[in-house]
Amino acid sequence: MATIYDVAREASVSTATVSRALRGRPEVLPEVRQRVLAVADRLGYRPNRLAQALARTHANALGLMLPADISHPFYGILAESVARHAIAYGYELVVGLPALPSVESYVEAAVDLQDRRIAGLLVCANSKTIAEYARNRRAGAPPLVALGCLPDVDVPLVTADEEAAGHELTQHLIDLAHRRIGFLGLGPEEVRPSGREHGYLRAVTEAGLPSVLRGADRTMEGGREGAIRLLEGSPGLTAIIAHNDAVALGALRGLFEAGVRVPEDIAVAGFDNIPQSRYSIPALTTVDLSAEEMAQRGLEMLGRHLGFVEGEPDGRLLITPQLVIRDSSGPARS
Amino acid sequence: MATIYDVAREASVSTATVSRALRGRPEVLPEVRQRVLAVADRLGYRPNRLAQALARTHANALGLMLPADISHPFYGILAESVARHAIAYGYELVVGLPALPSVESYVEAAVDLQDRRIAGLLVCANSKTIAEYARNRRAGAPPLVALGCLPDVDVPLVTADEEAAGHELTQHLIDLAHRRIGFLGLGPEEVRPSGREHGYLRAVTEAGLPSVLRGADRTMEGGREGAIRLLEGSPGLTAIIAHNDAVALGALRGLFEAGVRVPEDIAVAGFDNIPQSRYSIPALTTVDLSAEEMAQRGLEMLGRHLGFVEGEPDGRLLITPQLVIRDSSGPARS
Repeated sequence: MATIYDVAREASVSTATVSRALRGRPEVLPEVRQRVLAVADRLGYRPNRLAQALARTHANALGLMLPADISHPFYGILAESVARHAIAYGYELVVGLPALPSVESYVEAAVDLQDRRIAGLLVCANSKTIAEYARNRRAGAPPLVALGCLPDVDVPLVTADEEAAGHELTQHLIDLAHRRIGFLGLGPEEVRPSGREHGYLRAVTEAGLPSVLRGADRTMEGGREGAIRLLEGSPGLTAIIAHNDAVALGALRGLFEAGVRVPEDIAVAGFDNIPQSRYSIPALTTVDLSAEEMAQRGLEMLGRHLGFVEGEPDGRLLITPQLVIRDSSGPARS
Repeated sequence: MATIYDVAREASVSTATVSRALRGRPEVLPEVRQRVLAVADRLGYRPNRLAQALARTHANALGLMLPADISHPFYGILAESVARHAIAYGYELVVGLPALPSVESYVEAAVDLQDRRIAGLLVCANSKTIAEYARNRRAGAPPLVALGCLPDVDVPLVTADEEAAGHELTQHLIDLAHRRIGFLGLGPEEVRPSGREHGYLRAVTEAGLPSVLRGADRTMEGGREGAIRLLEGSPGLTAIIAHNDAVALGALRGLFEAGVRVPEDIAVAGFDNIPQSRYSIPALTTVDLSAEEMAQRGLEMLGRHLGFVEGEPDGRLLITPQLVIRDSSGPARS
């Protein structure tokens, strides 16, 4: 059965315009109205009174799919920001969570959420998961915008420029005379290095320095264990870049337990700028990937698809990250 | 317009039984069928085909309402646990978030969520907010269970015994010879002291010690600023109990900046046992309020209301908290 979304897509207009056209509202241009009616007719779309009533009552919400590890504060801040900005457009927020940390579980939860009378969907997860979801969407699912990833599928998205973030953070350490810098947190299940890792690799290569990549769980415990193993396996290392702030905070703890001083003996830095990174001892150098701005720009992009924000609907937006220098990174020990 | 929930309540049966009775399914006893039909007739309930189809597809979810400050990792862990346990009963999880940190915003979001074709609802917020929501529920809203609070209204709930938690943590410090113990984080908007504060007050009173309560934002920044103000205002203080681990981690940072050593000069402790508390420097003494168990028991209680878990549906369950002693609490300096 064709939905209003199918008609909107085929006629290259918003669902709001489809609705207005079918109700004969005067603000729709005659040629647009004609195109919408022709598409609706061809697809056999029949607006249903109850469905319309339900849509009026309940399509006042937007959906946000988060990954399973939402105890990482980055996702909490993202969700908080999305909820706050959504209401400014008159939308409640409904959040979907996968039951388990698997691609399959994420796709199931997202497919459930998209059918829960929401007007549009923001999806946040790694690139592989988002690509899999995009391939599994039914025709006519609500419009989506991906947040915080660069999947190999054609979906509108808003993400931080993670390659630039990785490069800038690494360059900061190179400028402090670090010559052997390790990267901790290469995901074991990732198909390819993340943007952060690419940026790190480009910076060390440009400077003629060796690359030292090491896998670790992307958790505080992964950072605690991994930091020590990284030091043991790489004599002469003077700096560690962790995949995210949680891994970096764990690394601070692991180094403390091993009697290694930060930043005197080794510099440590992360990504995300979660609130905790400002309060750790020492306070953590990191890159702010702008969860707040990501939420805002993602909603604006979704709004252009749904017609509540003016402008062209498609696109990919890269947000410029901000280096945040704190106490955990100092000059390399000589 | 009467809903299937109104009919179910009036006829004292489950919504599934109402649905079966109206469809003439053989597993419904004749007298039950007659009662359901009579109630449906009296209330003017008309099952609608599309609505029935939608209900069949979508009442496979449970709802979880979280408070606005979900970047506190406790809520992330709670949501993760609820999602994992819900799927074991065959339910997806849909999470509602208030747009703003106000009681009104929470109630609006909860009222929206309850109408989003969910079978039942878990609600987590402070007692005042939950009481307000309970008073604003429409007749026939899906069954609810409150998590982590003790509201002054008659709703089923699962929460940690926070009074016992406050008492046990304070007693731990008294046993370490602390004689002047401050409590940081009395909420300025709370109508009355929290359970944690009651437990603290009981313990110091039993020991013949003074009570030192101080308000602070329940954030890391609140802890950072508050710890110093608390010390300045209370000479002789040797221990600080913070309202939660976030406040305690902020206190560790504030004391570090002021050159006050933990635990040598002052002991610090919190509540929740969030993952970060194990990795801070020094690692934080805290009380585990069992987000994981709260999620599991809350779902079981909801399951007894919805019929997917055996047993009596009503009740209030208090979970016994667990004291977790780490490095931030040592003997009082003499």
